[in-house]
Amino acid sequence: MNTIAYLGPEHTNTHLAALRRFGRRARYVHAPTIDDVFRLVEREQADYGVAPIENSLEGAVTHTLDRFIDFRRSPVTIHGEIEQPIAHWLITAGRSMSVRVVYSHPQALAQCRAWLDAHLPRAKRVETSSTADAVKRLRAGGNDGAAIARRELAKTPLRATPIPLSSDNKTRFLVLGLAHPQPGRNNKTSILFALKDRPGALYDALTPFKREQINLTKIESRPSKKKAWEYYFFIDITGHTSELRVERALKSLEKSTLLLKVLGSYPVTR
Amino acid sequence: MNTIAYLGPEHTNTHLAALRRFGRRARYVHAPTIDDVFRLVEREQADYGVAPIENSLEGAVTHTLDRFIDFRRSPVTIHGEIEQPIAHWLITAGRSMSVRVVYSHPQALAQCRAWLDAHLPRAKRVETSSTADAVKRLRAGGNDGAAIARRELAKTPLRATPIPLSSDNKTRFLVLGLAHPQPGRNNKTSILFALKDRPGALYDALTPFKREQINLTKIESRPSKKKAWEYYFFIDITGHTSELRVERALKSLEKSTLLLKVLGSYPVTR
Repeated sequence: MNTIAYLGPEHTNTHLAALRRFGRRARYVHAPTIDDVFRLVEREQADYGVAPIENSLEGAVTHTLDRFIDFRRSPVTIHGEIEQPIAHWLITAGRSMSVRVVYSHPQALAQCRAWLDAHLPRAKRVETSSTADAVKRLRAGGNDGAAIARRELAKTPLRATPIPLSSDNKTRFLVLGLAHPQPGRNNKTSILFALKDRPGALYDALTPFKREQINLTKIESRPSKKKAWEYYFFIDITGHTSELRVERALKSLEKSTLLLKVLGSYPVTR
Repeated sequence: MNTIAYLGPEHTNTHLAALRRFGRRARYVHAPTIDDVFRLVEREQADYGVAPIENSLEGAVTHTLDRFIDFRRSPVTIHGEIEQPIAHWLITAGRSMSVRVVYSHPQALAQCRAWLDAHLPRAKRVETSSTADAVKRLRAGGNDGAAIARRELAKTPLRATPIPLSSDNKTRFLVLGLAHPQPGRNNKTSILFALKDRPGALYDALTPFKREQINLTKIESRPSKKKAWEYYFFIDITGHTSELRVERALKSLEKSTLLLKVLGSYPVTR
Protein backbone atom coordinates (compact mmCIF):
# COMPACT_ATOMS: atom_id res chain seq x y z
CA MET A 1 0.00 0.00 0.00
CA ASN A 2 1.43 3.40 -0.99
CA THR A 3 1.75 6.28 1.43
CA ILE A 4 0.79 9.64 -0.06
CA ALA A 5 1.81 12.96 1.51
CA TYR A 6 -0.37 15.89 0.48
CA LEU A 7 -0.63 19.56 1.41
CA GLY A 8 -3.24 19.35 4.14
CA PRO A 9 -5.30 19.54 6.23
CA GLU A 10 -7.92 16.99 5.13
CA HIS A 11 -10.64 17.96 2.64
CA THR A 12 -8.56 20.59 0.85
CA ASN A 13 -8.34 20.65 -2.93
CA THR A 14 -4.91 19.01 -2.73
CA HIS A 15 -6.43 16.15 -0.73
CA LEU A 16 -9.15 15.74 -3.37
CA ALA A 17 -6.55 15.71 -6.14
CA ALA A 18 -4.51 13.06 -4.30
CA LEU A 19 -7.62 10.88 -3.80
CA ARG A 20 -8.50 11.25 -7.47
CA ARG A 21 -5.08 9.93 -8.46
CA PHE A 22 -4.37 7.29 -5.82
CA GLY A 23 -7.87 6.22 -4.77
CA ARG A 24 -9.05 4.77 -1.48
CA ARG A 25 -6.47 1.99 -1.32
CA ALA A 26 -3.58 4.29 -0.32
CA ARG A 27 -2.58 5.64 3.09
CA TYR A 28 -2.75 9.45 3.26
CA VAL A 29 -0.59 11.73 5.40
CA HIS A 30 -1.30 15.43 5.47
CA ALA A 31 1.65 17.78 5.56
CA PRO A 32 1.22 21.32 6.95
CA THR A 33 3.38 23.02 4.29
CA ILE A 34 4.59 22.45 0.72
CA ASP A 35 8.09 22.10 2.13
CA ASP A 36 6.87 19.24 4.36
CA VAL A 37 5.37 17.41 1.35
CA PHE A 38 8.80 17.43 -0.33
CA ARG A 39 10.55 16.48 2.92
CA LEU A 40 8.33 13.45 3.57
CA VAL A 41 9.19 12.16 0.09
CA GLU A 42 12.92 12.91 0.53
CA ARG A 43 13.00 10.97 3.82
CA GLU A 44 11.06 8.10 2.26
CA GLN A 45 8.29 8.57 4.82
CA ALA A 46 5.94 8.83 1.85
CA ASP A 47 6.07 7.07 -1.53
CA TYR A 48 4.52 10.04 -3.29
CA GLY A 49 3.77 13.66 -2.53
CA VAL A 50 1.06 15.87 -4.00
CA ALA A 51 1.49 19.66 -4.14
CA PRO A 52 -0.17 22.42 -6.21
CA ILE A 53 1.93 23.96 -8.99
CA GLU A 54 -0.40 26.22 -10.96
CA ASN A 55 -3.92 27.64 -11.08
CA SER A 56 -5.61 28.61 -14.34
CA LEU A 57 -6.62 32.05 -12.98
CA GLU A 58 -3.89 32.98 -10.52
CA GLY A 59 -0.85 31.40 -12.15
CA ALA A 60 2.13 29.66 -10.62
CA VAL A 61 2.27 28.49 -7.03
CA THR A 62 5.56 30.20 -6.32
CA HIS A 63 6.26 28.25 -3.08
CA THR A 64 6.43 25.02 -5.07
CA LEU A 65 8.64 26.49 -7.81
CA ASP A 66 10.95 28.04 -5.20
CA ARG A 67 11.25 24.69 -3.33
CA PHE A 68 12.83 23.25 -6.49
CA ILE A 69 15.28 26.18 -6.62
CA ASP A 70 16.13 26.29 -2.91
CA PHE A 71 16.79 22.53 -2.71
CA ARG A 72 18.14 21.88 -6.17
CA ARG A 73 20.18 18.90 -4.95
CA SER A 74 17.01 17.19 -3.69
CA PRO A 75 16.41 13.73 -5.19
CA VAL A 76 12.68 14.52 -5.59
CA THR A 77 11.42 14.24 -9.18
CA ILE A 78 8.08 14.88 -10.83
CA HIS A 79 6.17 11.65 -11.53
CA GLY A 80 2.97 13.06 -12.93
CA GLU A 81 0.34 15.75 -12.77
CA ILE A 82 -3.30 15.93 -11.69
CA GLU A 83 -5.78 18.50 -12.95
CA GLN A 84 -8.56 19.37 -10.56
CA PRO A 85 -11.53 21.71 -11.22
CA ILE A 86 -11.94 24.18 -8.37
CA ALA A 87 -15.35 25.29 -7.09
CA HIS A 88 -15.54 28.01 -4.45
CA TRP A 89 -18.42 28.52 -2.02
CA LEU A 90 -19.03 31.35 0.40
CA ILE A 91 -19.66 29.69 3.74
CA THR A 92 -21.41 31.73 6.39
CA ALA A 93 -22.41 31.18 9.99
CA GLY A 94 -26.19 31.01 10.50
CA ARG A 95 -28.38 33.70 8.98
CA SER A 96 -26.11 36.67 9.28
CA MET A 97 -26.29 38.85 6.17
CA SER A 98 -23.56 41.27 7.12
CA VAL A 99 -20.20 39.72 6.39
CA ARG A 100 -17.39 41.83 7.80
CA VAL A 101 -14.50 39.42 7.43
CA VAL A 102 -13.75 36.71 4.85
CA TYR A 103 -11.25 33.96 5.65
CA SER A 104 -9.55 31.85 3.04
CA HIS A 105 -6.31 30.63 1.52
CA PRO A 106 -4.54 33.45 -0.40
CA GLN A 107 -5.02 31.62 -3.74
CA ALA A 108 -8.79 31.32 -3.16
CA LEU A 109 -9.04 34.96 -2.07
CA ALA A 110 -7.17 35.97 -5.22
CA GLN A 111 -9.32 33.79 -7.49
CA CYS A 112 -12.48 35.33 -6.00
CA ARG A 113 -11.08 38.87 -5.94
CA ALA A 114 -13.47 40.28 -8.58
CA TRP A 115 -16.51 38.64 -6.93
CA LEU A 116 -15.51 39.92 -3.49
CA ASP A 117 -14.90 43.43 -4.87
CA ALA A 118 -18.42 43.41 -6.33
CA HIS A 119 -20.36 41.65 -3.55
CA LEU A 120 -18.46 42.19 -0.31
CA PRO A 121 -16.36 45.29 -1.03
CA ARG A 122 -16.10 46.27 2.65
CA ALA A 123 -15.33 42.87 4.13
CA LYS A 124 -11.80 42.46 5.40
CA ARG A 125 -9.96 39.56 3.78
CA VAL A 126 -7.92 37.42 6.15
CA GLU A 127 -5.42 34.88 4.82
CA THR A 128 -5.46 31.39 6.31
CA SER A 129 -3.11 28.49 5.71
CA SER A 130 -5.81 26.41 3.97
CA THR A 131 -9.47 26.56 3.02
CA ALA A 132 -10.19 24.01 5.76
CA ASP A 133 -8.48 26.30 8.26
CA ALA A 134 -10.67 29.17 7.01
CA VAL A 135 -13.79 27.22 8.01
CA LYS A 136 -12.24 26.53 11.43
CA ARG A 137 -11.62 30.26 11.88
CA LEU A 138 -15.22 30.94 10.89
CA ARG A 139 -16.54 28.47 13.48
CA ALA A 140 -14.37 30.05 16.17
CA GLY A 141 -15.34 33.62 15.25
CA GLY A 142 -18.55 35.62 15.50
CA ASN A 143 -21.57 35.75 13.22
CA ASP A 144 -20.10 38.39 10.91
CA GLY A 145 -17.53 36.08 9.33
CA ALA A 146 -17.43 34.02 6.15
CA ALA A 147 -15.04 31.50 4.63
CA ILE A 148 -14.30 30.61 1.02
CA ALA A 149 -13.93 26.85 0.70
CA ARG A 150 -15.38 23.73 -0.88
CA ARG A 151 -19.05 23.06 -0.20
CA GLU A 152 -18.31 19.81 1.65
CA LEU A 153 -16.74 21.81 4.48
CA ALA A 154 -20.00 23.61 5.31
CA LYS A 155 -21.49 21.27 7.90
CA THR A 156 -24.68 22.37 9.69
CA PRO A 157 -25.34 25.02 10.91
CA LEU A 158 -23.03 26.61 8.34
CA ARG A 159 -24.57 27.63 5.02
CA ALA A 160 -22.91 27.63 1.60
CA THR A 161 -23.60 29.78 -1.48
CA PRO A 162 -21.73 29.18 -4.75
CA ILE A 163 -19.34 31.87 -5.96
CA PRO A 164 -19.68 31.95 -9.74
CA LEU A 165 -16.44 32.64 -11.58
CA SER A 166 -16.46 33.86 -15.15
CA SER A 167 -13.68 31.55 -16.29
CA ASP A 168 -12.31 28.07 -16.14
CA ASN A 169 -10.93 27.56 -12.64
CA LYS A 170 -8.60 24.58 -12.42
CA THR A 171 -5.55 23.76 -10.40
CA ARG A 172 -2.73 21.57 -11.60
CA PHE A 173 -0.97 19.45 -8.99
CA LEU A 174 2.37 17.64 -9.22
CA VAL A 175 2.90 14.07 -8.11
CA LEU A 176 6.36 13.95 -6.52
CA GLY A 177 8.48 10.86 -5.93
CA LEU A 178 11.99 9.46 -6.03
CA ALA A 179 13.71 7.90 -9.05
CA HIS A 180 12.06 8.13 -12.48
CA PRO A 181 8.64 6.90 -13.61
CA GLN A 182 8.03 4.74 -16.70
CA PRO A 183 7.23 6.73 -19.85
CA GLY A 184 3.55 6.85 -20.81
CA ARG A 185 2.14 7.22 -24.32
CA ASN A 186 2.43 11.04 -24.25
CA ASN A 187 5.04 12.55 -21.98
CA LYS A 188 6.34 15.88 -20.95
CA THR A 189 9.59 16.95 -19.30
CA SER A 190 10.02 19.74 -16.76
CA ILE A 191 13.35 21.53 -16.65
CA LEU A 192 14.91 24.13 -14.33
CA PHE A 193 17.80 26.23 -15.61
CA ALA A 194 19.81 29.40 -15.01
CA LEU A 195 21.25 31.39 -17.89
CA LYS A 196 24.61 33.02 -18.34
CA ASP A 197 24.23 36.80 -18.25
CA ARG A 198 24.69 37.77 -21.90
CA PRO A 199 22.51 39.17 -24.70
CA GLY A 200 20.34 36.60 -26.45
CA ALA A 201 20.87 33.96 -23.73
CA LEU A 202 17.19 32.93 -23.48
CA TYR A 203 16.79 32.76 -27.24
CA ASP A 204 19.91 30.60 -27.53
CA ALA A 205 18.65 28.33 -24.75
CA LEU A 206 15.41 27.69 -26.67
CA THR A 207 17.15 27.08 -30.02
CA PRO A 208 17.90 23.34 -29.42
CA PHE A 209 14.19 22.66 -28.85
CA LYS A 210 13.25 24.41 -32.07
CA ARG A 211 15.92 22.49 -33.94
CA GLU A 212 14.65 19.14 -32.58
CA GLN A 213 11.02 20.16 -33.18
CA ILE A 214 10.23 19.86 -29.47
CA ASN A 215 7.35 22.02 -28.34
CA LEU A 216 7.67 24.32 -25.33
CA THR A 217 4.33 24.20 -23.47
CA LYS A 218 5.17 26.48 -20.57
CA ILE A 219 7.75 28.97 -19.29
CA GLU A 220 7.99 30.58 -15.86
CA SER A 221 10.72 32.81 -14.43
CA ARG A 222 11.53 33.17 -10.73
CA PRO A 223 14.01 35.45 -8.94
CA SER A 224 17.39 33.83 -8.22
CA LYS A 225 17.32 35.40 -4.71
CA LYS A 226 21.10 35.75 -4.98
CA LYS A 227 21.32 38.88 -7.05
CA ALA A 228 18.48 41.29 -7.79
CA TRP A 229 16.90 40.90 -11.26
CA GLU A 230 18.56 37.57 -12.00
CA TYR A 231 16.23 34.70 -12.78
CA TYR A 232 15.78 30.97 -12.90
CA PHE A 233 13.60 29.53 -15.65
CA PHE A 234 11.17 26.63 -15.50
CA ILE A 235 10.11 25.16 -18.83
CA ASP A 236 7.90 22.25 -19.78
CA ILE A 237 8.59 20.55 -23.12
CA THR A 238 6.83 17.72 -24.92
CA GLY A 239 8.64 14.37 -24.91
CA HIS A 240 10.57 12.13 -22.54
CA THR A 241 14.27 12.20 -21.63
CA SER A 242 14.54 8.63 -22.96
CA GLU A 243 13.88 9.98 -26.49
CA LEU A 244 16.98 10.72 -28.51
CA ARG A 245 15.84 14.14 -29.69
CA VAL A 246 15.12 15.26 -26.10
CA GLU A 247 18.50 13.97 -24.98
CA ARG A 248 20.21 15.87 -27.81
CA ALA A 249 18.34 19.09 -27.03
CA LEU A 250 19.22 18.89 -23.33
CA LYS A 251 22.90 18.30 -24.08
CA SER A 252 22.88 21.35 -26.30
CA LEU A 253 20.97 23.42 -23.73
CA GLU A 254 23.57 22.57 -21.10
CA LYS A 255 26.17 24.59 -23.02
CA SER A 256 24.28 27.86 -22.60
CA THR A 257 23.24 27.39 -18.97
CA LEU A 258 24.93 27.88 -15.62
CA LEU A 259 22.69 25.28 -14.03
CA LEU A 260 20.41 22.68 -15.60
CA LYS A 261 18.24 20.17 -13.79
CA VAL A 262 15.64 17.85 -15.24
CA LEU A 263 12.85 17.87 -12.66
CA GLY A 264 11.07 14.95 -14.25
CA SER A 265 9.75 13.24 -17.39
CA TYR A 266 6.20 12.02 -16.90
CA PRO A 267 2.96 11.09 -18.65
CA VAL A 268 0.72 13.98 -19.72
CA THR A 269 -2.82 13.77 -18.31
CA ARG A 270 -4.58 15.69 -21.06
CA MET B 1 2.66 71.06 -9.70
CA ASN B 2 2.23 67.39 -10.54
CA THR B 3 -0.26 65.15 -8.77
CA ILE B 4 1.10 61.68 -8.00
CA ALA B 5 -1.17 58.74 -7.14
CA TYR B 6 0.57 55.93 -5.24
CA LEU B 7 -0.46 52.68 -3.65
CA GLY B 8 -1.09 53.88 -0.11
CA PRO B 9 -1.58 54.46 2.73
CA GLU B 10 1.16 56.97 3.61
CA HIS B 11 4.64 55.81 4.63
CA THR B 12 4.53 52.57 2.65
CA ASN B 13 7.42 51.55 0.42
CA THR B 14 5.44 52.75 -2.61
CA HIS B 15 5.08 56.18 -1.01
CA LEU B 16 8.83 56.29 -0.37
CA ALA B 17 9.52 55.31 -3.99
CA ALA B 18 7.16 58.04 -5.25
CA LEU B 19 8.86 60.65 -3.03
CA ARG B 20 12.27 59.55 -4.25
CA ARG B 21 11.21 60.13 -7.84
CA PHE B 22 9.01 63.21 -7.60
CA GLY B 23 10.33 64.95 -4.48
CA ARG B 24 8.58 67.29 -2.09
CA ARG B 25 7.27 69.65 -4.76
CA ALA B 26 4.50 67.33 -5.96
CA ARG B 27 1.03 66.71 -4.56
CA TYR B 28 0.53 63.12 -3.39
CA VAL B 29 -2.73 61.17 -3.40
CA HIS B 30 -2.83 57.72 -1.87
CA ALA B 31 -4.91 55.08 -3.62
CA PRO B 32 -6.20 52.05 -1.66
CA THR B 33 -5.55 49.50 -4.44
CA ILE B 34 -3.34 49.05 -7.50
CA ASP B 35 -6.47 49.28 -9.62
CA ASP B 36 -7.19 52.72 -8.11
CA VAL B 37 -3.69 53.94 -9.00
CA PHE B 38 -4.34 53.08 -12.66
CA ARG B 39 -7.85 54.55 -12.51
CA LEU B 40 -6.71 57.91 -11.11
CA VAL B 41 -4.26 58.21 -14.03
CA GLU B 42 -6.88 57.11 -16.59
CA ARG B 43 -9.34 59.75 -15.31
CA GLU B 44 -6.61 62.40 -15.32
CA GLN B 45 -7.09 62.91 -11.60
CA ALA B 46 -3.37 62.25 -11.27
CA ASP B 47 -0.53 63.11 -13.65
CA TYR B 48 1.44 60.04 -12.66
CA GLY B 49 0.82 56.83 -10.76
CA VAL B 50 3.32 54.69 -8.85
CA ALA B 51 2.73 50.96 -8.36
CA PRO B 52 5.01 48.01 -7.49
CA ILE B 53 5.83 45.60 -10.31
CA GLU B 54 8.49 43.24 -8.98
CA ASN B 55 10.46 42.28 -5.90
CA SER B 56 13.94 40.78 -6.09
CA LEU B 57 13.02 37.92 -3.71
CA GLU B 58 9.34 37.28 -4.34
CA GLY B 59 9.08 38.02 -8.04
CA ALA B 60 6.30 39.70 -10.00
CA VAL B 61 3.49 41.67 -8.43
CA THR B 62 0.79 39.78 -10.28
CA HIS B 63 -1.98 42.33 -9.52
CA THR B 64 -0.08 44.95 -11.53
CA LEU B 65 0.64 42.59 -14.45
CA ASP B 66 -3.00 41.43 -14.50
CA ARG B 67 -4.27 45.04 -14.52
CA PHE B 68 -2.47 45.49 -17.87
CA ILE B 69 -4.16 42.32 -19.19
CA ASP B 70 -7.65 43.00 -17.81
CA PHE B 71 -7.74 46.57 -19.13
CA ARG B 72 -5.68 46.21 -22.27
CA ARG B 73 -7.47 49.13 -23.96
CA SER B 74 -6.45 51.46 -21.15
CA PRO B 75 -4.45 54.51 -22.33
CA VAL B 76 -2.05 54.13 -19.38
CA THR B 77 1.60 53.69 -20.38
CA ILE B 78 4.80 53.10 -18.44
CA HIS B 79 6.87 56.28 -18.09
CA GLY B 80 9.69 55.00 -15.96
CA GLU B 81 10.78 52.79 -13.10
CA ILE B 82 12.03 53.32 -9.57
CA GLU B 83 14.17 50.86 -7.67
CA GLN B 84 13.79 50.95 -3.92
CA PRO B 85 15.80 48.95 -1.35
CA ILE B 86 13.46 47.30 1.15
CA ALA B 87 14.34 46.98 4.84
CA HIS B 88 12.02 45.05 7.12
CA TRP B 89 11.73 45.53 10.87
CA LEU B 90 9.82 43.48 13.39
CA ILE B 91 7.75 45.98 15.32
CA THR B 92 6.41 44.90 18.68
CA ALA B 93 4.22 46.47 21.34
CA GLY B 94 6.06 47.23 24.56
CA ARG B 95 8.20 44.56 26.14
CA SER B 96 6.25 41.49 25.22
CA MET B 97 8.54 38.64 24.22
CA SER B 98 5.89 36.18 23.16
CA VAL B 99 4.69 37.08 19.70
CA ARG B 100 1.63 35.04 18.76
CA VAL B 101 0.52 36.90 15.66
CA VAL B 102 2.48 38.77 12.98
CA TYR B 103 0.70 41.29 10.76
CA SER B 104 2.03 42.45 7.42
CA HIS B 105 1.49 42.83 3.71
CA PRO B 106 1.61 39.43 1.94
CA GLN B 107 4.79 40.41 0.03
CA ALA B 108 6.59 41.34 3.27
CA LEU B 109 5.41 38.12 4.97
CA ALA B 110 6.68 36.13 1.99
CA GLN B 111 10.04 37.95 1.91
CA CYS B 112 10.54 37.24 5.62
CA ARG B 113 9.22 33.66 5.44
CA ALA B 114 12.55 31.96 6.23
CA TRP B 115 13.24 34.33 9.13
CA LEU B 116 9.76 33.83 10.56
CA ASP B 117 10.06 30.04 10.19
CA ALA B 118 13.30 30.16 12.18
CA HIS B 119 12.46 32.77 14.82
CA LEU B 120 8.69 32.81 15.23
CA PRO B 121 7.61 29.40 13.93
CA ARG B 122 4.42 29.35 16.00
CA ALA B 123 3.22 32.88 15.38
CA LYS B 124 0.17 33.13 13.16
CA ARG B 125 0.74 35.29 10.07
CA VAL B 126 -2.09 37.66 9.23
CA GLU B 127 -2.20 39.44 5.89
CA THR B 128 -2.92 43.17 5.88
CA SER B 129 -3.48 45.50 2.96
CA SER B 130 -0.24 47.41 3.63
CA THR B 131 2.66 47.51 6.06
CA ALA B 132 1.23 50.72 7.49
CA ASP B 133 -2.07 48.91 8.10
CA ALA B 134 -0.13 46.13 9.87
CA VAL B 135 1.18 48.66 12.41
CA LYS B 136 -2.36 49.98 12.90
CA ARG B 137 -3.55 46.42 13.59
CA LEU B 138 -0.72 45.99 16.07
CA ARG B 139 -1.70 49.18 17.94
CA ALA B 140 -5.32 48.05 18.09
CA GLY B 141 -4.47 44.52 19.25
CA GLY B 142 -3.03 43.09 22.45
CA ASN B 143 0.58 42.76 23.59
CA ASP B 144 1.18 39.47 21.80
CA GLY B 145 1.21 40.97 18.30
CA ALA B 146 3.97 42.14 15.96
CA ALA B 147 4.06 43.88 12.60
CA ILE B 148 6.61 43.74 9.80
CA ALA B 149 7.11 47.22 8.39
CA ARG B 150 9.62 50.01 7.90
CA ARG B 151 11.34 51.30 11.04
CA GLU B 152 9.85 54.77 10.67
CA LEU B 153 6.42 53.36 11.46
CA ALA B 154 7.49 52.25 14.96
CA LYS B 155 6.57 55.34 16.99
CA THR B 156 6.90 55.15 20.80
CA PRO B 157 6.00 52.97 22.67
CA LEU B 158 6.48 50.52 19.80
CA ARG B 159 9.89 48.91 19.42
CA ALA B 160 11.64 47.84 16.21
CA THR B 161 14.23 45.12 15.61
CA PRO B 162 15.79 44.66 12.15
CA ILE B 163 14.99 41.46 10.25
CA PRO B 164 18.20 40.48 8.45
CA LEU B 165 17.66 38.95 5.02
CA SER B 166 20.34 36.89 3.37
CA SER B 167 19.90 38.50 -0.03
CA ASP B 168 19.39 41.71 -1.88
CA ASN B 169 15.85 42.87 -1.17
CA LYS B 170 14.67 45.50 -3.63
CA THR B 171 11.34 46.40 -5.16
CA ARG B 172 10.93 47.86 -8.61
CA PHE B 173 8.05 50.30 -9.10
CA LEU B 174 6.51 51.57 -12.33
CA VAL B 175 5.75 55.20 -13.02
CA LEU B 176 2.46 55.26 -14.94
CA GLY B 177 1.14 58.09 -17.07
CA LEU B 178 -0.68 58.96 -20.27
CA ALA B 179 0.95 59.53 -23.69
CA HIS B 180 4.63 58.70 -24.18
CA PRO B 181 7.69 60.05 -22.37
CA GLN B 182 10.80 61.46 -24.07
CA PRO B 183 13.55 58.89 -24.67
CA GLY B 184 16.46 59.01 -22.21
CA ARG B 185 20.03 58.00 -22.92
CA ASN B 186 19.37 54.29 -22.20
CA ASN B 187 15.83 53.06 -22.67
CA LYS B 188 13.82 49.93 -22.36
CA THR B 189 10.47 48.89 -23.80
CA SER B 190 7.83 46.76 -22.07
CA ILE B 191 5.58 44.64 -24.27
CA LEU B 192 2.49 42.50 -23.61
CA PHE B 193 1.56 39.80 -26.13
CA ALA B 194 -0.46 36.63 -26.65
CA LEU B 195 0.76 33.85 -28.91
CA LYS B 196 -1.03 31.76 -31.46
CA ASP B 197 -1.36 28.18 -30.20
CA ARG B 198 1.18 26.34 -32.33
CA PRO B 199 4.54 24.60 -31.78
CA GLY B 200 7.53 26.92 -31.59
CA ALA B 201 5.37 30.05 -31.16
CA LEU B 202 7.43 31.55 -28.33
CA TYR B 203 10.70 30.86 -30.12
CA ASP B 204 9.39 32.48 -33.29
CA ALA B 205 8.17 35.49 -31.29
CA LEU B 206 11.67 36.04 -29.91
CA THR B 207 13.43 35.63 -33.27
CA PRO B 208 12.99 39.27 -34.46
CA PHE B 209 14.75 40.53 -31.32
CA LYS B 210 17.69 38.20 -31.89
CA ARG B 211 17.86 39.28 -35.54
CA GLU B 212 17.92 42.97 -34.57
CA GLN B 213 20.40 42.31 -31.72
CA ILE B 214 17.91 43.56 -29.15
CA ASN B 215 18.42 42.12 -25.70
CA LEU B 216 15.54 40.60 -23.76
CA THR B 217 15.98 41.59 -20.11
CA LYS B 218 12.89 39.96 -18.66
CA ILE B 219 10.05 37.56 -19.42
CA GLU B 220 6.95 36.81 -17.35
CA SER B 221 3.96 34.67 -18.22
CA ARG B 222 0.47 35.10 -16.78
CA PRO B 223 -2.70 33.03 -17.25
CA SER B 224 -5.04 34.35 -19.93
CA LYS B 225 -8.02 33.69 -17.57
CA LYS B 226 -10.05 32.82 -20.67
CA LYS B 227 -8.92 29.28 -21.23
CA ALA B 228 -6.98 27.13 -18.78
CA TRP B 229 -3.22 26.87 -19.49
CA GLU B 230 -3.19 29.67 -22.04
CA TYR B 231 -0.82 32.53 -21.28
CA TYR B 232 0.00 36.15 -21.90
CA PHE B 233 3.65 37.15 -21.98
CA PHE B 234 5.30 40.29 -20.66
CA ILE B 235 8.77 41.03 -21.98
CA ASP B 236 11.19 43.88 -21.43
CA ILE B 237 13.67 44.64 -24.20
CA THR B 238 16.50 47.15 -24.46
CA GLY B 239 15.85 50.13 -26.72
CA HIS B 240 13.09 52.64 -27.51
CA THR B 241 10.19 52.33 -29.96
CA SER B 242 11.53 55.40 -31.76
CA GLU B 243 14.59 53.35 -32.83
CA LEU B 244 14.32 51.76 -36.25
CA ARG B 245 15.51 48.31 -35.16
CA VAL B 246 12.92 48.19 -32.34
CA GLU B 247 10.22 49.28 -34.76
CA ARG B 248 11.24 46.55 -37.23
CA ALA B 249 11.31 43.88 -34.51
CA LEU B 250 7.85 44.85 -33.25
CA LYS B 251 6.39 44.78 -36.77
CA SER B 252 7.80 41.31 -37.22
CA LEU B 253 6.60 40.15 -33.78
CA GLU B 254 3.09 41.29 -34.65
CA LYS B 255 2.85 38.55 -37.29
CA SER B 256 3.21 35.75 -34.75
CA THR B 257 0.96 37.19 -32.05
CA LEU B 258 -2.78 37.32 -31.46
CA LEU B 259 -2.42 40.47 -29.41
CA LEU B 260 0.46 42.89 -29.08
CA LYS B 261 0.61 46.00 -26.95
CA VAL B 262 3.57 48.22 -26.22
CA LEU B 263 3.12 49.17 -22.56
CA GLY B 264 5.79 51.84 -22.71
CA SER B 265 9.30 52.90 -23.78
CA TYR B 266 11.12 54.64 -20.96
CA PRO B 267 14.54 55.52 -19.55
CA VAL B 268 16.35 52.78 -17.64
CA THR B 269 17.33 53.79 -14.12
CA ARG B 270 20.31 51.49 -13.72
